[in-house]
Amino acid sequence: MHLADGAPQVNGNDQTEYGKNVVEGLKKEEQLEKSSVQKLSTEHDLVLKTFRFGAIGMAAIGVALWKYGMRYAPHTPTYFNRDRFVLSNGHTCLFQYTFLHLTGYKAMTLEQLKSYHSDRVDALCPGHPEIEHEGIEVTTGPLGQGVANAVGLAMATKNLQATYNKPEFDVVSNHTWCMIGDACLQEGVALEAISLAGHLKLNNLTIMYDNNQITCDGSVDLTNTEDVNAKMRACGWDVIDIEDGCFDIEGLVEALNKARAATDKPTFINVRTVIGIGSAVAGNAVAHGAAFGDDDVANMKKMYGFDPQSSFVVGEEVRKFFGDIPARGEDFVRSWENKVQAYEEKYPELGADFRRRVEGRLPENWKELIPTKEAFPEKATATRASSGLVFNPIAQACNNFMVGTADLSPSVNMIWKGKVDFQHPDRKTTCGITGNYSGRYIHYGVREHAMAAVSNGLAAFAPNTFVPITSSFFMFYLYAAPAVRMGALQHLQVIHAATHDSIGMGEDGPTHQPIELANLYRAMPNVLYIRPGDSEETAGAWITAIEAKHTSTIISTSRHTLPQLPQTRRDGVSKGAYVLQEDEDADVTLIGVGAELCFAVDVAKELKTKGIKARLISFPCWRLFEAQSLEYKRDTLRKHRIPAVVIEPYAPNGWERYANAAICVKRFGHSLPGKAAYKFFGFEVGTMTAKVGEYLESLKADDILRQEFVEL
Amino acid sequence: MHLADGAPQVNGNDQTEYGKNVVEGLKKEEQLEKSSVQKLSTEHDLVLKTFRFGAIGMAAIGVALWKYGMRYAPHTPTYFNRDRFVLSNGHTCLFQYTFLHLTGYKAMTLEQLKSYHSDRVDALCPGHPEIEHEGIEVTTGPLGQGVANAVGLAMATKNLQATYNKPEFDVVSNHTWCMIGDACLQEGVALEAISLAGHLKLNNLTIMYDNNQITCDGSVDLTNTEDVNAKMRACGWDVIDIEDGCFDIEGLVEALNKARAATDKPTFINVRTVIGIGSAVAGNAVAHGAAFGDDDVANMKKMYGFDPQSSFVVGEEVRKFFGDIPARGEDFVRSWENKVQAYEEKYPELGADFRRRVEGRLPENWKELIPTKEAFPEKATATRASSGLVFNPIAQACNNFMVGTADLSPSVNMIWKGKVDFQHPDRKTTCGITGNYSGRYIHYGVREHAMAAVSNGLAAFAPNTFVPITSSFFMFYLYAAPAVRMGALQHLQVIHAATHDSIGMGEDGPTHQPIELANLYRAMPNVLYIRPGDSEETAGAWITAIEAKHTSTIISTSRHTLPQLPQTRRDGVSKGAYVLQEDEDADVTLIGVGAELCFAVDVAKELKTKGIKARLISFPCWRLFEAQSLEYKRDTLRKHRIPAVVIEPYAPNGWERYANAAICVKRFGHSLPGKAAYKFFGFEVGTMTAKVGEYLESLKADDILRQEFVEL
Repeated sequence: MHLADGAPQVNGNDQTEYGKNVVEGLKKEEQLEKSSVQKLSTEHDLVLKTFRFGAIGMAAIGVALWKYGMRYAPHTPTYFNRDRFVLSNGHTCLFQYTFLHLTGYKAMTLEQLKSYHSDRVDALCPGHPEIEHEGIEVTTGPLGQGVANAVGLAMATKNLQATYNKPEFDVVSNHTWCMIGDACLQEGVALEAISLAGHLKLNNLTIMYDNNQITCDGSVDLTNTEDVNAKMRACGWDVIDIEDGCFDIEGLVEALNKARAATDKPTFINVRTVIGIGSAVAGNAVAHGAAFGDDDVANMKKMYGFDPQSSFVVGEEVRKFFGDIPARGEDFVRSWENKVQAYEEKYPELGADFRRRVEGRLPENWKELIPTKEAFPEKATATRASSGLVFNPIAQACNNFMVGTADLSPSVNMIWKGKVDFQHPDRKTTCGITGNYSGRYIHYGVREHAMAAVSNGLAAFAPNTFVPITSSFFMFYLYAAPAVRMGALQHLQVIHAATHDSIGMGEDGPTHQPIELANLYRAMPNVLYIRPGDSEETAGAWITAIEAKHTSTIISTSRHTLPQLPQTRRDGVSKGAYVLQEDEDADVTLIGVGAELCFAVDVAKELKTKGIKARLISFPCWRLFEAQSLEYKRDTLRKHRIPAVVIEPYAPNGWERYANAAICVKRFGHSLPGKAAYKFFGFEVGTMTAKVGEYLESLKADDILRQEFVEL
Repeated sequence: MHLADGAPQVNGNDQTEYGKNVVEGLKKEEQLEKSSVQKLSTEHDLVLKTFRFGAIGMAAIGVALWKYGMRYAPHTPTYFNRDRFVLSNGHTCLFQYTFLHLTGYKAMTLEQLKSYHSDRVDALCPGHPEIEHEGIEVTTGPLGQGVANAVGLAMATKNLQATYNKPEFDVVSNHTWCMIGDACLQEGVALEAISLAGHLKLNNLTIMYDNNQITCDGSVDLTNTEDVNAKMRACGWDVIDIEDGCFDIEGLVEALNKARAATDKPTFINVRTVIGIGSAVAGNAVAHGAAFGDDDVANMKKMYGFDPQSSFVVGEEVRKFFGDIPARGEDFVRSWENKVQAYEEKYPELGADFRRRVEGRLPENWKELIPTKEAFPEKATATRASSGLVFNPIAQACNNFMVGTADLSPSVNMIWKGKVDFQHPDRKTTCGITGNYSGRYIHYGVREHAMAAVSNGLAAFAPNTFVPITSSFFMFYLYAAPAVRMGALQHLQVIHAATHDSIGMGEDGPTHQPIELANLYRAMPNVLYIRPGDSEETAGAWITAIEAKHTSTIISTSRHTLPQLPQTRRDGVSKGAYVLQEDEDADVTLIGVGAELCFAVDVAKELKTKGIKARLISFPCWRLFEAQSLEYKRDTLRKHRIPAVVIEPYAPNGWERYANAAICVKRFGHSLPGKAAYKFFGFEVGTMTAKVGEYLESLKADDILRQEFVEL
C-alpha cells in the first residue's frame, strides 16, 4: 500500500527553512547502496515495497512482527493471552494503523486509514495511537512512556503466570513487544524503566529499537553519542544487533524468536534503519516531520513499480501475504479457551479465581474489610497511617492489587501483613528481602515517573485485572505527573497513595511542600484528587477510588497526626463535599480540607466565643462535588446567602468557585517542623479566627468586596 | 565535631516497625573489620572520627574535598572562579553545613548548626540546602536534580572559558563537583543529564558517588542491580573506583586530582561507603532516615574517645586542620583579581565584556533590538514565529543568553542568524552540524526534564551571568515541571519558550493538548505564565521575562497563525491584563487570552450585531495582574458592575476570580486539525456568541446564578 500523495507530517512539526538549510544529512544514493536489497526473497521484497509509508524505515520490522513474531487475533482483539505491542514512538502510528488494517482488524478499514490528520471526528487514526481503538494496547505520544508501559505489561504477565499457571496449563504465556525510536532512549522515564526491567529479569519483554539515528533536530550524534548496546547490557539486557534493518526480515524474525525464547533477561534488538528510505530525503531529519512533496512520492512509487497516479492501493499479493493472520489468531483463541476450560476443571478454585481476574472483578467482600468508624483508633492518627488501616487488609485479600512504592516503604504505610515482594525468584538481596513473581509489592526504587508509567502498563493489561497502587510523597507526583496524566487519559484505574501533603510535613522544606501541585491534579481531567481529614474520610477516599473503575485517583494524606472528628462520614467523601456542621443562622461558612479540616472545626468553635456563627463544610474533592446535582451543590455551599472562607495552605486558585476568601499560601514553603510551619504561615487557630472576623467586618465596609476573592 | 544526641531524622521519614522487622542489613562488626582504619595517618584519623555525624559514611569524601580537592574562598563565598559544589543527595545537608562551618564560612556559626530541624525561622540549616545561604550553590532535595544542575554549572564554565580565556589568562578555570547517593542514579533526570554530559565531554565535571547501597526501603539490590561503572563508561564517562571510601582519604584525594586533570571526559568516582558507619545500625536502611538513639550515639562517642556527655564540641586539632582554608581562599581571590586586572589591560574590549558578565548585566541596548509594533508582519503570524522575530536578534547580540531546545529546533523558532552550537570542538556530527564551547545554542536531545534542570545550573553559576532559554511544546513542560519548579524556587531567571499551546495545535491529539497544565504554572510561585495574543503581545512577554531578573517565565505561544490585532500593547502585557476595548455601557466583559484573544474580538463584533455591547480585556498573565494596584484591577475588570466571560480552551479553575463564566474545556483534547479541534470543542465564533447571549439571558432568570461560576 502506498499512502496518500504527500507523506503525512508525522508529528505536526513544520520544518520551514530549518531542514533545507541546516541539516545536510546522508545521501540517498549511499543509503540505497548500503542496503542489501538483493538478498530479499521476492515475496518479502514486494511486501516491503508496499509498506514504504508512514514510518518507512520500520517496514521490515513491522512485517517481521505482524507476520511472524507476534501472537494475536485480529478478529478477537481483546484475546486475553495475546502478545502486547506498544508503539512507544507513537508519532509513527501510521505504521501500526496500516498493519492493523492489513492483518484484518475489522474496524480499521481502508476508509479509516484515510482519516489520519483529517477533520473526521470519529477517526480511528488519531495523531498518536489511542487505547480506545481496536488493536491499540496503550495510548502513546509523549516519548519514553511506552517503554515503561511495556515493562508494566510484562510484569502483569509474570505475576499472572506465577499466580495461575500450572504444569501443562500455561494459561498465561504472552510476550510484550515494544517499538521505540532514538528519542525514547533519551527520555528519563524510559531509562528508569529499562533499569528496573533488567533488575526484574523480564525475559518476556522485547524492545525493538528503530535505530535510524535521526530526530527532529538532525542526526542523533548532535546530542547522544553513548554506546547504547553497552548501556543496555550494563542494565541487565540481552542485545541483538540487526545491521540491515530496512530489509533483513529473516534476521529480524530470527531475533524475535530468540527474544521470545530468552531465559533470564529482557531483550534489546538494535535495528539499524534509514529514515525515509527510498525518498529524496532518506536519512535526513526533514524526513522525520515534513511531507515529502508530490514529486518525491511519485518517484518513490515509480521506483517500486507502482502507478504514481494511484493512492491507497493494496495489491492482491499483499492481501494474500497477510490473509492467514485472522484464522491463525482464532486458532490461538480457541486453543487458549480450551486450555482454560480444562484448567478450570482440574483446578476449580484457582480456575474461578483466574476467571474473576480475566473479567476484571474484585472479590465481592472487599468493602467489608474496611474498619467501621468506631473501629478506628480513638487517638489522633496521621491519614497516611489511616490509609494503611483502610487499605492493607484489602490489598492482602484481593490479588488484583499490585502495590508499589518509589522507595518510601517506611513512610507510606502500604505494606500489609505477609506481603510478598514482586521479584525474580532467584534474587537474593543484601538486606535479606526476597520474593517471587507472584508477589504483589513492588519496590520501584527512586523512580517516581517510571512507577506511575509502569502502573499504567499493569492497568492496561486487561480492564481491572490489575489495579495498581503507587505511593510516594505527594510532592514527587510532580515527577510522576506525565504518567499520571497518561493513566487518566486512558481511563485506567490507578490509585496513587500520596503522603506528606500540605505544609505539615515540615522540616523537609520548600522543595517538599506541595504548595501548587493540587492545582494541577484538581484541573486534570479524569483524576480524583482527594484529601481526607481523618480515618473515616480516608475510608471514604479508598472506597471512592476502588469503585472508580475507569478513573485515576490520588489519595493525598498527612504525615502528621490528625484528630478523629465525630462528624465525618465516609459517604460524604463520595460526594466531594458535605456539611459537617449546619447552622441555619450562620454568619459564615468555613470550608475545611484534608489535614486542615480540624483547623476549620477549631476556628468555628473559637468564632462562636466571639459571637460569630459558623457552619462547616468538609471538602475533600472538587471533581466529585462537581458531579453532584445543582440542588445538592447549592444546599451544601449556600454561597449565595453567606460568605464562605476556605482553609488550605495551598495556592488558592479555583477555590473562588466555592469560597469568597481563603486562608492560603501563595509563596513557596519554609523548612520548619510541622507545627512551626503552620504557625509561620498563619495557620494557628487564633490567627485564623481573627482573619475571618476581620474579613466579615471588611465586607460591611467595602461593597465591591463581595464580588472579589480575597486571600486572608 | 560530634553532633547533638540522637542523630537527625535526615529526610523526615519515620521508620516505625519497618526497619526493625524487615531490613536485616550487614553487621556493624564486619564493616569495621573490612575498613582499613590502620592505614590512616593519625591526623586524618582524628579528623575522620570527629566528622562522624550527619551523613557519617561520607565524612572521608568531605575531608578530601574541602581540605584538598576544592578551590574556594569561605570569606568571599561568591568568588567568581570558585569551584562549584552540588549536594545532589540534599537530604545529607548536615554534611555540607558542617564543612561550611569548619572551613570558615562566617554565617555558619556553631549556633546555626544547631538550628537544623529546629523551630528557628531564620535558620541557615534548613532540611535541604538552599541557594539563599552562604556557600550553597543550588537548592537540592528532589533527587537527581543536582546532577543536572552540576552539568549546567560545568557547561557555564566551558562557555565562559571558550568565550573569554586567552593564553596565559585563564580567567575562568573552575571545576564542578557533584555529590550523589544511590537514589540520584535511579532518577530519570539524572540519567538524561549524565548522557548529555558524556556527549559534551565535560572534563570539568566530577560526580562523587556515595555508594553505600542503601536507600529508604533497604539495600539497593532490591531495585537496582545494574553495572553502574559499565553504564557510566557507556555514557562517555571516566570511572575511578574507591574501595574503602569511609577511610581512604589519600585515595580519594588522588581521585579528585585525577578528575580535575581529566582531558576529554567527565569523571565518575565510585566510592564504596558504609551508611551509619560506627553506629549499631551501620550498613542498614534504618540508618538512612531514623535517629540512632541515645545509647548508640553515646557508644559511638566512646568508641572514638570523646566524652559521651558532651555535644557540639570541636577539638582544637580539628580547628587547626581546617585553619588554613580561609587564607588559602583569599589567595585564590587575590590571584584571580590580579589576573583579571591584567587581562582587562591587555584585552580592554573583551575585559569589559567579561566584567559585564561577571556583574550579570545585559548589553544596554537589548530592548532596542525588538521590532516596533509597525515593523511586525501585517499578515497573520503564529506567536511561536513572533517569539523568533522578537527574541532571535536579542539572542544574537547578547551573549548572556544560552538558548536550548529539547529536539524541536524546526518548531520553536529559537535559532538566530549565525548561531553556533554548544558542542565539544572536535565533535563531527553525521548531519554536518558542528560547534564549539563558545556556542550558545544547545541541542539537549529529547530530554525536557534535564533541559530545565541543566538550565537551572547555568543560571545558578552567578546571578544573571547566564540567562538560559529552554524550548519545547508546552505540553512537555509537564516532563520538565520539577525542574521548572526548582528554578522558580531558587529565584533563577530562566525563560521557557513553550510553543504549541492550547488546542489549536491540533492533530497530535490529547497527549499533546495541554488542557490542565496552565493551572499548574499559574499557581506555581515565582513563575510568570504568559500567553501573548499576537506579535505585539509576544514582544511584551519577552520584555517582561527579560526584565524579571529573579523570576522564571513561561512564554506560551501558538503553533497556528493569529491575526495581528490593532489594539494590543506590549506594555499592557507587563500589567498582566488590560482593556483592549472599553465601553462604559457594556452588557458584558469578554476576556480573551493568548491564541484565543482574536476569538474574543470576533465574538464582541458578533454580539454587537445582536444588540449586546461587550467590552474586551486581554489577559495574558495572572501573576502580573495580581501585582497591580486594587484600583487598576477594579477598573480593568469591572466585575462588580457587569458579568465577565473568559474564552480559553483550558480547564477554567481559577478564572472564577476574574470571570463569571467560561467558554472552556474540562475533558482531555481530541486529535483533529486545529480549526476542526476548535469547532469540536465549541470555539466557533457563532457558537460562542450564542453561548454568551444565552448566559446573559439566564442571569435574568436565576438570581443565584450571579454567585456561581458557569462553564458554558
